[in-house]
Amino acid sequence: MLLGHNFIGFDSKAAGEKQLHAFSTVLNDQLPGDFIVATENEINEAVQKATSAFERYRQTSFADRALFLEAIADEIMEVGPALVERAHLETGLPEARITGERARTVGQLRLFAALLREGSFVHAIIDTALPDRTPLPRADLRQLMLPIGPVAVFAASNFPLAFSTAGGDTAAALAAGCPVVVKAHSAHLGTNELVAAAIISAAKRCGMPDGVFSSLIGEGAQLGQQLVKHPQVKAVGFTGSFRGGMALLKAAVNEREEPIPVYAEMSSINPVLVLPGKISQDADALATQLSGSITLGVGQFCTNPGLLFLVQDEKTDAFIQKLAQALEQVPAATMLNKAICAAYQTERQQLLTQEGVQVVLRGNEGDTGYKVNASLAYTTAANFRQNNTLHNEVFGPASLVVVCRDAADLRATLQELHGQLTGTVLATPADLEEFADSVDVLVQKVGRLIYNGVPTGVEVSHAMMHGGPFPATTFAHFTSVGTEAINRFLRPVCYQDCPQAFLPDALKDENPLRIMRKVNGVHTRDAIGQKEALAV
Amino acid sequence: MLLGHNFIGFDSKAAGEKQLHAFSTVLNDQLPGDFIVATENEINEAVQKATSAFERYRQTSFADRALFLEAIADEIMEVGPALVERAHLETGLPEARITGERARTVGQLRLFAALLREGSFVHAIIDTALPDRTPLPRADLRQLMLPIGPVAVFAASNFPLAFSTAGGDTAAALAAGCPVVVKAHSAHLGTNELVAAAIISAAKRCGMPDGVFSSLIGEGAQLGQQLVKHPQVKAVGFTGSFRGGMALLKAAVNEREEPIPVYAEMSSINPVLVLPGKISQDADALATQLSGSITLGVGQFCTNPGLLFLVQDEKTDAFIQKLAQALEQVPAATMLNKAICAAYQTERQQLLTQEGVQVVLRGNEGDTGYKVNASLAYTTAANFRQNNTLHNEVFGPASLVVVCRDAADLRATLQELHGQLTGTVLATPADLEEFADSVDVLVQKVGRLIYNGVPTGVEVSHAMMHGGPFPATTFAHFTSVGTEAINRFLRPVCYQDCPQAFLPDALKDENPLRIMRKVNGVHTRDAIGQKEALAV
Repeated sequence: MLLGHNFIGFDSKAAGEKQLHAFSTVLNDQLPGDFIVATENEINEAVQKATSAFERYRQTSFADRALFLEAIADEIMEVGPALVERAHLETGLPEARITGERARTVGQLRLFAALLREGSFVHAIIDTALPDRTPLPRADLRQLMLPIGPVAVFAASNFPLAFSTAGGDTAAALAAGCPVVVKAHSAHLGTNELVAAAIISAAKRCGMPDGVFSSLIGEGAQLGQQLVKHPQVKAVGFTGSFRGGMALLKAAVNEREEPIPVYAEMSSINPVLVLPGKISQDADALATQLSGSITLGVGQFCTNPGLLFLVQDEKTDAFIQKLAQALEQVPAATMLNKAICAAYQTERQQLLTQEGVQVVLRGNEGDTGYKVNASLAYTTAANFRQNNTLHNEVFGPASLVVVCRDAADLRATLQELHGQLTGTVLATPADLEEFADSVDVLVQKVGRLIYNGVPTGVEVSHAMMHGGPFPATTFAHFTSVGTEAINRFLRPVCYQDCPQAFLPDALKDENPLRIMRKVNGVHTRDAIGQKEALAV
Repeated sequence: MLLGHNFIGFDSKAAGEKQLHAFSTVLNDQLPGDFIVATENEINEAVQKATSAFERYRQTSFADRALFLEAIADEIMEVGPALVERAHLETGLPEARITGERARTVGQLRLFAALLREGSFVHAIIDTALPDRTPLPRADLRQLMLPIGPVAVFAASNFPLAFSTAGGDTAAALAAGCPVVVKAHSAHLGTNELVAAAIISAAKRCGMPDGVFSSLIGEGAQLGQQLVKHPQVKAVGFTGSFRGGMALLKAAVNEREEPIPVYAEMSSINPVLVLPGKISQDADALATQLSGSITLGVGQFCTNPGLLFLVQDEKTDAFIQKLAQALEQVPAATMLNKAICAAYQTERQQLLTQEGVQVVLRGNEGDTGYKVNASLAYTTAANFRQNNTLHNEVFGPASLVVVCRDAADLRATLQELHGQLTGTVLATPADLEEFADSVDVLVQKVGRLIYNGVPTGVEVSHAMMHGGPFPATTFAHFTSVGTEAINRFLRPVCYQDCPQAFLPDALKDENPLRIMRKVNGVHTRDAIGQKEALAV
């Protein structure tokens, strides 16, 4: 039984009158649950509670925070099949996919718990005093990363668990020591309620302060603007449309006294270079692999390959036909929600009707009950360079093949690409030698460069970079997936000549947390005073 | 003999008609040199050259970049006394100070060279493949930091060497692998020319690409806006006024297709808590120490202590008088330039005439030939909290004492502070216990917390944090001083399943650079394949 209330810290509130409802593209029907839009007072109260909670939460030990994250993971698993079923109905994503996404979600909470226990994420840097240095002595300087304050997290349409209420942004912010206020995604409000209740339950069980987590219901732009403009919100994590991300970024700079960082992941078409040697080697396997990546999750991944670059030779046409045949065999599947389905139909029509674009596989049209299938088209590199519309993301299983005359044409075309989350190179070693210049350009455009794989599939690990140059994200310096994501919510603070007793544990001489530190320029886990640490 | 030309990469150009001249507050006269404002074409050409140079410069080895930075340091020293004399005349800063600043400037170039040779700054993170993992195998993931592209650096008025043409921003960007276009500060154009020529000479000597460095002459806002809006500029480093920094930040988000980061250090009043136990211990020494910090460099430091917090007791009045006496003994000194001197006179008048502000030491007024001395005033915490004007920076040797009733009043007042570069605590161990809550609030407001020292004086080292929450800077995550400053100009890129031969050296199995890496969650310098590296 879903209450449809907002979680204002530990309180459940619904003073508002406006209601939202979840619609299922699977059932083609409205789902049970009346979800009450948060009032302005409730929004302010949630942020105020987060601000108060921050005073205590930022002081919690890494060990206690780790237990809290693990408790959230446990509570999410405790919800059981009800969560999988509701998320399936609210998003159209198959139950197997939701089950996998749930595993990823609890896995990333547990990975952040492990990061906290290890402790080196605070990036401790120590330069010990040099009292006898001339002309001036050096003070004792010790730097570490501290949490920045309350974070507003915007849930994503396409990952109801892993990028939503208890998703990567929430896990990273809570791990950093920042309270979180989630704007639930209006397409999966029931899923949000189940997960938010699990987080609140974990917070209570672990003795975390009231306000460490809140979840608000509201219409996208309105609630979003209220959150981003709130003076106590110190950062925003967002995964969604280009328009939505840019609106938040501009508000954060123009409509606040204090600008704050908006970490928005927005728009990427994930170019794939399909190089000639690789096509010669095994065109069938390549077509199958690409077709799988293009249609995975009905193409509703931010890493979906929307652009395929080929270099014209005698095998090009046959390969395009092979890919079209592979795509044609993938049955139509249900999209996430009405709006996304309508946008896909519009965007792919726009793509397929551009001048110089040849349709290879049109895909279904008209009323399809929210089920769609793939489209494929091709154009020349020259045409692609000229037409900006071809550089826009089509969110769904549509890909455009860009046929280049030669290596120079490929390189010149890659130069014109916008920033991307991923770039992929399907190549033999000989291809890599021959097209080294092009790959070198591609590196400049992406956050992740994939060799002989597909861009869909994002590992949650230490080395993952899920981000990239604009418009893939608003800030290429940060990732939203993997343990490095914690850096978005931390800032460095330096303690100068602070007495040992008043230093944070991470900076004390004896290194009680046994973390990796940089001491006088040398990485070490040793206590200060041992020989290694005093080397310069 | 100064040419007064712009450095467009290796070319010296002066197609424009507008001229600027340097004025000396020491001589009260214009200095020799006709400096030709860069034309729009020249600006575009400088950025275009930087973009071309980036293709090769980003590929240079860390060792070659280190040699380049050291060559710049050597060339600057080669300029000899002419540089010290010109900088003195252009800024009014004493020759001894300029000599010290030159040492700091070449010292920071050499420190970045050492950082490059050590190599771990690329922050290599490696998660090796897990081909047998179920349900899905893990790909091989390897992340490192890569340079972002051409950087525009805005020289600062108050540090003609250390924060200007070859200053911290330039050193950090060049170390990162990013070409630099400097906007010379119009107050010290001769100094800029001498240093820019030294950089160009070093670039030629080291075989660096034409365009790796340019230096442009122009009027502040106009040249600044042209640079920040140029589509090829990928980041901005700025030290200056709040208004200037905010104009750049807004242009970077609103007037470009692709927003870029603007790292602006702007405005800080650097609160100092002068706690009762410490005053009891040695009021004389404390007054002397504070007076020295307030008047150092005629108060023209971004870390100048503009606010002193006292907790009212029987010693408060006597201490304020003692501080006034110490300040009164410091002779008037010449300010940097006409505009800064005029602004100081206006801003301190505004401060001293606010309601509830009691003047203790008025300082000189009227026509003083650009020499000024210190001012001191006090007010109550309640009044300070109410009056926003008292929270503004007065750039120069003026400080405001804020008298708090008790620890709670102090804490409540600190809560209202804006973000700051530094916070200082002058305290006995007993004070630190008693006022722990207040210090805890102060940490949230600053980038650097100083115990029993003064905020002026910024060490160039690994652990330094010269930055802080808004409005001290536009982005509290980054420092502009010390080796961590390099992070502003680097972004992470992840290589997935990349063949060894095509990986950057920093990510290769054998770890040829011998850098510290995080491999499967464990920090190590070992090659991949050794036992330690494979531990999880």
